[in-house]
Amino acid sequence: MKRDRYGQLTAAMVLLLAALSATAAEPDPLPSWQEGATKSSITAFVERVTETGSEDYIPPAERIATFDNDGNLWAEQPMYFQLFFAIDRVKALAPQHPEWESQEPFASLLKGDVKAALAGGMPAINELIMTTHAGMTTDEFAVLVRDWIANARHPETGRLFTDMVYQPMLELLAYLRANDFKTFIVSGGGIEFMRPWTEAVYGIPPEQVVGSSVVTEFALREGKPVLVRLPEIRFIDDKEGKPVGINSHIGRRPVFASGNSDGDLQMLQYTAAGQGPRFMLYLHHTDAEREWAYDRESHVGRLDKGLDEARARGWTVIDMQRDWKAVFPKRQD
Amino acid sequence: MKRDRYGQLTAAMVLLLAALSATAAEPDPLPSWQEGATKSSITAFVERVTETGSEDYIPPAERIATFDNDGNLWAEQPMYFQLFFAIDRVKALAPQHPEWESQEPFASLLKGDVKAALAGGMPAINELIMTTHAGMTTDEFAVLVRDWIANARHPETGRLFTDMVYQPMLELLAYLRANDFKTFIVSGGGIEFMRPWTEAVYGIPPEQVVGSSVVTEFALREGKPVLVRLPEIRFIDDKEGKPVGINSHIGRRPVFASGNSDGDLQMLQYTAAGQGPRFMLYLHHTDAEREWAYDRESHVGRLDKGLDEARARGWTVIDMQRDWKAVFPKRQD
Repeated sequence: MKRDRYGQLTAAMVLLLAALSATAAEPDPLPSWQEGATKSSITAFVERVTETGSEDYIPPAERIATFDNDGNLWAEQPMYFQLFFAIDRVKALAPQHPEWESQEPFASLLKGDVKAALAGGMPAINELIMTTHAGMTTDEFAVLVRDWIANARHPETGRLFTDMVYQPMLELLAYLRANDFKTFIVSGGGIEFMRPWTEAVYGIPPEQVVGSSVVTEFALREGKPVLVRLPEIRFIDDKEGKPVGINSHIGRRPVFASGNSDGDLQMLQYTAAGQGPRFMLYLHHTDAEREWAYDRESHVGRLDKGLDEARARGWTVIDMQRDWKAVFPKRQD
Repeated sequence: MKRDRYGQLTAAMVLLLAALSATAAEPDPLPSWQEGATKSSITAFVERVTETGSEDYIPPAERIATFDNDGNLWAEQPMYFQLFFAIDRVKALAPQHPEWESQEPFASLLKGDVKAALAGGMPAINELIMTTHAGMTTDEFAVLVRDWIANARHPETGRLFTDMVYQPMLELLAYLRANDFKTFIVSGGGIEFMRPWTEAVYGIPPEQVVGSSVVTEFALREGKPVLVRLPEIRFIDDKEGKPVGINSHIGRRPVFASGNSDGDLQMLQYTAAGQGPRFMLYLHHTDAEREWAYDRESHVGRLDKGLDEARARGWTVIDMQRDWKAVFPKRQD
């Protein structure tokens, strides 16, 4: 029997649909999350904003989800991982800088006394960052970051830093993307420190990374156009800076925002203030055994005002110890 | 006969593929482009970088295409359309500013003498932009832009400004996206002047628009977090600023860049300097009948050094009169 094209197509579609609907129940998209109020608040939100005809339906183009990075997608103890990079750069550059032997914060660092080096507070950290993060082209900096991230290891766990990402958050990112959310990083960390590896590690491409930055300048080097990183802060993507960075890079108010410290509070407030359904998520570090436990008194990633506001406004707070079956991915090496 | 699921699925796929391959030859994706060297240079590039196994294959994630806006995606004569917006804002605000009757550039503008108003050069234009583009929240500004763009008409053609986009460029944007390119605007125009309408008009979402900007500041208004636009330039996305803006927003070097003036030259140079296959495209305004003809001597959209460099380096130059069958979309109103 000869069928016309329409009939052939219809028959094919019917068979295909039948085959697909015979598939077993879909696997849990968030297998590392314990069943309970936290997990179900996330899945309930995603279901109600993606269901066609739902009163709370959000069109795919508006499904903007923003995630802090340090302490939210990967760990941040005993100090921001970017500082380990800066310290390793100081060591690598030391032979060209004999004057550092008697100059702080370098002298202490080179003696291995990180605590003494950072005792100078923000000016010391600023000097450290500017010395190690500027003076090269953006392409050269990306190579330095790529080499470091592929080899450097956390001093306490011995793991690669990219293996100290949170398995439940990787699942959450993938789950949101499977539901047509566009996932962004909005971090106080350096934008060009993150971009070389976020696509491979988180599935987040460079154009969806927002962060702090130095001034860059267009220049011709041997006739080739390059961008040179200058030792001057352009933008700090933290606290009040986060909504500014979101507006500048994304141009839309997120409908889903996830952070772990008071530095994320304005991002969550800004998200909450939009019209329509919103989801605000805080990660509370409560697990001293598998990770670290810290909040109101911590120097890194302090969560104090944010915790109060989350409770007062009914935002979802992840209790790491209670809500996560696993913290880090299974160790490969 | 009962088939197992795998057999059922296979049968369905075979039928479906047969049905789809019976489809007629694909329609021309660039119907408003004349057949010839310009059009075929574009399609040849796209084919060779998207064909699996090609030596010049570019993975989808790296298919970044950047487009200037004024004079490249929409017209820019007799002056940048954003200036018409600024002038209409001055008129709307005039009742609240009696002092403008004797204060330039406002006094001339309100008398209808645009030329005299702009005779003050950049300081006058700057004052005009700051007065009309700052002092409100980003959300309020977006409403002003949306209202204006929906109603304002070009003084010479009587068309809506959004109907003065170039039909061949709309086709090019769609063609690139159909081939998994990510299309960005990189314009000297105001980023927040473009974002409210680029998605509807060009299919380019706000997060893929790069432009000039003013400083914004996070503030609480009646307890609600907002961003306030301040009368201070943050970034000029023109000339040397374009590669800087691309790096800041996208974080990858484009593989395809399209512009029409010397203000786009550094973007094209930066694109050309990357490794692997690249495509640099200049639009030359040669059509005094259907649009405007201007290049080396024009005050708006001057194309002088860029034209020389394009010819010297073999970049593709669109001759509007020769290469485009149509310039604007068919008139609807």
